Amino acid sequence: MNQALKPHFVSLKTIVEKLGGELISEDPACQVSRVGTLENAKADAISFVSQAKFLPQLATTQAGAVVLPIAYRDASTLPRIITENPYLYFARLSAFLNPPKPKTPGIHPSAVVAASVQCGERVSIGAHVFIGENVRLGHDVVIEPNCVIADHCHIGDNTHLMAQVTLYAHSQIGSRCILHSGVVIGADGFGIAVDQQRWVKVPQLGKVVLGDDVEVGANTTIDRGAIDDTIIEEGVKLDNLIQIAHNVHIGAHTAIAACTGIAGSARIGRWCRIGGSARIAGHIHIADGVEISATTFITKSITLTGTYSGGYPFEPNAQWRRTAVQIRHLDSLNKTVKTLEKRLAALERKVT
Amino acid sequence: MNQALKPHFVSLKTIVEKLGGELISEDPACQVSRVGTLENAKADAISFVSQAKFLPQLATTQAGAVVLPIAYRDASTLPRIITENPYLYFARLSAFLNPPKPKTPGIHPSAVVAASVQCGERVSIGAHVFIGENVRLGHDVVIEPNCVIADHCHIGDNTHLMAQVTLYAHSQIGSRCILHSGVVIGADGFGIAVDQQRWVKVPQLGKVVLGDDVEVGANTTIDRGAIDDTIIEEGVKLDNLIQIAHNVHIGAHTAIAACTGIAGSARIGRWCRIGGSARIAGHIHIADGVEISATTFITKSITLTGTYSGGYPFEPNAQWRRTAVQIRHLDSLNKTVKTLEKRLAALERKVT
Amino acid sequence: MNQALKPHFVSLKTIVEKLGGELISEDPACQVSRVGTLENAKADAISFVSQAKFLPQLATTQAGAVVLPIAYRDASTLPRIITENPYLYFARLSAFLNPPKPKTPGIHPSAVVAASVQCGERVSIGAHVFIGENVRLGHDVVIEPNCVIADHCHIGDNTHLMAQVTLYAHSQIGSRCILHSGVVIGADGFGIAVDQQRWVKVPQLGKVVLGDDVEVGANTTIDRGAIDDTIIEEGVKLDNLIQIAHNVHIGAHTAIAACTGIAGSARIGRWCRIGGSARIAGHIHIADGVEISATTFITKSITLTGTYSGGYPFEPNAQWRRTAVQIRHLDSLNKTVKTLEKRLAALERKVT
Repeated sequence: MNQALKPHFVSLKTIVEKLGGELISEDPACQVSRVGTLENAKADAISFVSQAKFLPQLATTQAGAVVLPIAYRDASTLPRIITENPYLYFARLSAFLNPPKPKTPGIHPSAVVAASVQCGERVSIGAHVFIGENVRLGHDVVIEPNCVIADHCHIGDNTHLMAQVTLYAHSQIGSRCILHSGVVIGADGFGIAVDQQRWVKVPQLGKVVLGDDVEVGANTTIDRGAIDDTIIEEGVKLDNLIQIAHNVHIGAHTAIAACTGIAGSARIGRWCRIGGSARIAGHIHIADGVEISATTFITKSITLTGTYSGGYPFEPNAQWRRTAVQIRHLDSLNKTVKTLEKRLAALERKVT
Repeated sequence: MNQALKPHFVSLKTIVEKLGGELISEDPACQVSRVGTLENAKADAISFVSQAKFLPQLATTQAGAVVLPIAYRDASTLPRIITENPYLYFARLSAFLNPPKPKTPGIHPSAVVAASVQCGERVSIGAHVFIGENVRLGHDVVIEPNCVIADHCHIGDNTHLMAQVTLYAHSQIGSRCILHSGVVIGADGFGIAVDQQRWVKVPQLGKVVLGDDVEVGANTTIDRGAIDDTIIEEGVKLDNLIQIAHNVHIGAHTAIAACTGIAGSARIGRWCRIGGSARIAGHIHIADGVEISATTFITKSITLTGTYSGGYPFEPNAQWRRTAVQIRHLDSLNKTVKTLEKRLAALERKVT
Repeated sequence: MNQALKPHFVSLKTIVEKLGGELISEDPACQVSRVGTLENAKADAISFVSQAKFLPQLATTQAGAVVLPIAYRDASTLPRIITENPYLYFARLSAFLNPPKPKTPGIHPSAVVAASVQCGERVSIGAHVFIGENVRLGHDVVIEPNCVIADHCHIGDNTHLMAQVTLYAHSQIGSRCILHSGVVIGADGFGIAVDQQRWVKVPQLGKVVLGDDVEVGANTTIDRGAIDDTIIEEGVKLDNLIQIAHNVHIGAHTAIAACTGIAGSARIGRWCRIGGSARIAGHIHIADGVEISATTFITKSITLTGTYSGGYPFEPNAQWRRTAVQIRHLDSLNKTVKTLEKRLAALERKVT
């Protein structure tokens, strides 16, 4: 994980052979062993520029090489790799230089695993894990220490549960998923019916279904459906501390930043991008490809692709207090203006 | 939990004998084995309509039977049960058709339970659970795997801790409570006194007291009191990822949706309903029966029953940018209007 | 933890000898055994007043003694201790009367601890803890049950991990830190590059570094850096359910209330105070000593010390609906007013 532990060098020539891109270097044998930021990289590291605003840092960086977009191919004299999308290139380069350390397969003796569990090949189950009845684990699944997997869950090939993940009964997790620590999948949705004297719990009988290649950030919660299922399609990426309520449906490849809350039965399209701390009301539909800015509260369905925003502007405290007063008087200000219009029109008629 | 595993059929006649309601059916022997949504139910399932907007789905549903409100008793020709509150009826019917599978009592050999723990009858303690000194567990308590219960906690009869719940020392949990995975009860409140050079921690000596029939959603946190206790009265329902700060007092049967934060020493009445991502400032009082809309930030005490809202409207991004500029100029707009009024009045005096 | 268990009395005289302050009492031998609130304290407890608004409660309190600020030294006839900062005094007094119960050192037999772990003296490791390879624990470290500490972590002297804390590999925790239950340190930051058809994960290679005397509230998440590290300097205090994204840098002694989210690469100064549910956008800088009010969304860098706010005002629902309409029409209202100004000016020219 930490690059410091494995300093093996690779030449830029090998990198472009592997990952593509155009190499510009007086010394194609130039080697790097790690990735670095323009600010902190040393001669053993390769860095990148994806946005014009970072170009000035090229003048001072101590990186040994750099990845640049086509438009800025000559913005540096360093050994460099030219590519269309440097951020994507960098993601791949970083993965290439830092291959994940394979887990030793096996079940830790302290794990409690029901006899009915079906295990694929090369599965790794860590210390203090609990796995209930009739669970099915694909090949190369890794379950880190202290996870709890309740009865009847299915987990696809190559999926990785970090420490302390909880799956309630019947959860279905796709292949190549990553669930970070503290994630809770399949807890009861918030379904309560009001009786005269008290709340009555509505049994939550659906399950959670995660498609392939889903990543779920730390301490995020995804509730099981009330009757039908909560569905997160393939390639969805969820950040930390997100709440997904019962019967939400999230389309493939949608990405959602941290602290966002999505209320029950909301249906979100494919390839949406939702900023941090956004709120989506229950039972609404959001079209494919919609972008929602951070902190926006979406209260109605959105049928047209586009960017929608609702962050309230901040101000120095004294000014904010004055603004808040005006906001509470907006309705009366509007009436005042309407009255002024009428009085002015009357006066104009009189004078003309 | 998953209905598919236990398809035993029950006649509508048996259902109304058990749960009340009026049965309208040419075939009172008609049987169902599960509940379903209008959209996805098959002939073996009974569905329901609670709001007029779902009535059109009655035309196309494949459900074998349906629960309808009195006002729409003839909205379908399906075998049907007529009742005043279909959602409540459905909650009970669903519980009737899906009785919880009883846990086998006993203490898993991997659990670490202090010798001083007092256990009621039929208690179930799962794998890798830790229970500290002088803990008292009522009858029929279920502690799922990997929970941690610190010293001196009390847990009432029939309470169910899902996997990975943490109770700090001295926490008191009522009877028939459900605590979902990742819940943390009794962590230190955020009490810090400022010294010239650094923060000094204020010891958090109170505890958390949960009444009977409280449900707490996944990853919700309820902090212990600083000196006196944090109190959640009976029947309170909390959704996921909620923060309850030290010394908060929540009245009986109040329901709070996900991602809401309640600051220290706030006092919330009985039978309040608080929407998702709401924020309640510290030290304020909220009367009984108050409803707070999602994302609203309550900064002052509320003494009158009613609904209070403060969600900021979203707009397409370009329009939102213009609005945000205007909001920052609201104070000057207001002054402009006031000046216009004066000038207009002067002109009116002159002309008349 | 709960005061009820250890009623040993201390005289006010001993307290002022230990902690300073001026004692005013007809009976300097007067003794207390605990701290209490003005409202609920009995004769065995000492209470305090830090703000003028609590003075009226002095008339009815049953406390045996009280801590008062210099300005109100005669606001009560109770035995009293006079000091400049009663809240700070109270924090120290409370710690003095409630010394933490020392943990018995040792490793619980159910813990799984790699042979390569280096342990300081008097370390306590609880049940079902997992500690990976090459971890270094300082002296007097306490690891409560069910924590997971991945490879290569370092934890400084006297640091206390409450139950169910997770440290990902390479996390560095300072001395005298407190990490509450459910905290996740070092999960992957939310780094994804867009390819034509899908998201590509950007490896998260940095780590998390926490300085000395940092406290982290329950279920808070701090992500590891993408390339460089996420850094939380000494004395920072974080409440519950906070999200700190990758490569954030928080200056020493900054305090952040619950439910706040800080986006990637934001840089926050020293001694800032950030209210609950605040949001800080990515890549911005906030100067030292800045105060941010609860629920404020900071979208731009702040270079001047001061208080900044952005909470949207709440209203009774009907009024809020009218306000929301006006907000959406603010731009057109502004245009109307500008037109009025022109028409009025024209009329004024005509009439004068």
